[in-house]
Amino acid sequence: MKKSLGARTLILPTPVWVIGTYDKAGKPNVMTAAWGGICCSKPPCVAVSLRKATYTYGNIMERKAFTVSVPPEKYAREADYFGIASGSRVDKFAAAKLTPAKSNLVDAPYVEEFPLVLECKVIHIIEIGLHTQFIGEILDVKADDDVLGENGLPDVEMLQPIIFAPEIGTYHGIGRPIGKAFSIGKEI
Amino acid sequence: MKKSLGARTLILPTPVWVIGTYDKAGKPNVMTAAWGGICCSKPPCVAVSLRKATYTYGNIMERKAFTVSVPPEKYAREADYFGIASGSRVDKFAAAKLTPAKSNLVDAPYVEEFPLVLECKVIHIIEIGLHTQFIGEILDVKADDDVLGENGLPDVEMLQPIIFAPEIGTYHGIGRPIGKAFSIGKEI
Repeated sequence: MKKSLGARTLILPTPVWVIGTYDKAGKPNVMTAAWGGICCSKPPCVAVSLRKATYTYGNIMERKAFTVSVPPEKYAREADYFGIASGSRVDKFAAAKLTPAKSNLVDAPYVEEFPLVLECKVIHIIEIGLHTQFIGEILDVKADDDVLGENGLPDVEMLQPIIFAPEIGTYHGIGRPIGKAFSIGKEI
Repeated sequence: MKKSLGARTLILPTPVWVIGTYDKAGKPNVMTAAWGGICCSKPPCVAVSLRKATYTYGNIMERKAFTVSVPPEKYAREADYFGIASGSRVDKFAAAKLTPAKSNLVDAPYVEEFPLVLECKVIHIIEIGLHTQFIGEILDVKADDDVLGENGLPDVEMLQPIIFAPEIGTYHGIGRPIGKAFSIGKEI
């Protein structure tokens, strides 16, 4: 029997992604977002939704660019901090002792210490309500050499991405492999 | 040192969500989507992106409604099948021996056997490229009684959501809890 829990943003999984931008003065900033996902294959695009009140919102409106750095489990504290503090008041990179690296493709910085990074150019801005959705075309994906497997793609267990459970309010690691996509269902 | 992997939809985590719709004749259909995410808190909204070629695309355009059923690990095979087969040729519910339940709020069915369900009314349609993004306002979230914890919210480890690793092409379970959001970063 299903019970109604009301109109709310309660679903799993949601990502823990760190959005990198420059402000007007060129100060690098980061904020953590869980409202986002891939939204197109061609061109490859990722969507992230932010409140207008965030420092990052103004930065993206100004520069029309952002990066997504995927924090590994060992940086869960820093990722959480990036979602708590505001770039309008503090230098979050300095406070977290992490390094801003300038993208060579878009006008935005990423987190050098995080193993997987997407560099994005804003191609659509959609006003939804409390949140504004930015659709960024992914111009490149960059990954640390030491998380790449034999096939040249990142190894999931080495990336150790973080999963957020909205409303419940907890972070989780990624679990064991269950099977191969577009394959395990073929027998049905 | 970071290596360039090219412009592609390579990021983690992405969800495994089953999108429920009715076709013109009223036949319930489901397809699995990994291109999606929460995109607004007020009103609560979820975005899912689909190719025009899918049967679900036509159904949503016609009915302006969909559901998102979150498959648990034990239904990974069925969820994968829902992403392989097309509703234009088969009755996927019947083939997978799963039950379509009619939403009492929107003109779409959900998967009775899956423990967490969102009922959505389409409020925006955005043409991006190969994919069209549907933004659905979440009118209600429904969950099985037996996955609810003491606080009335679903228990993550009982839900057992599936995580998809795009490009890498594997499904994963959810891992151990890492910490509390908006909390573990406070000490920085």
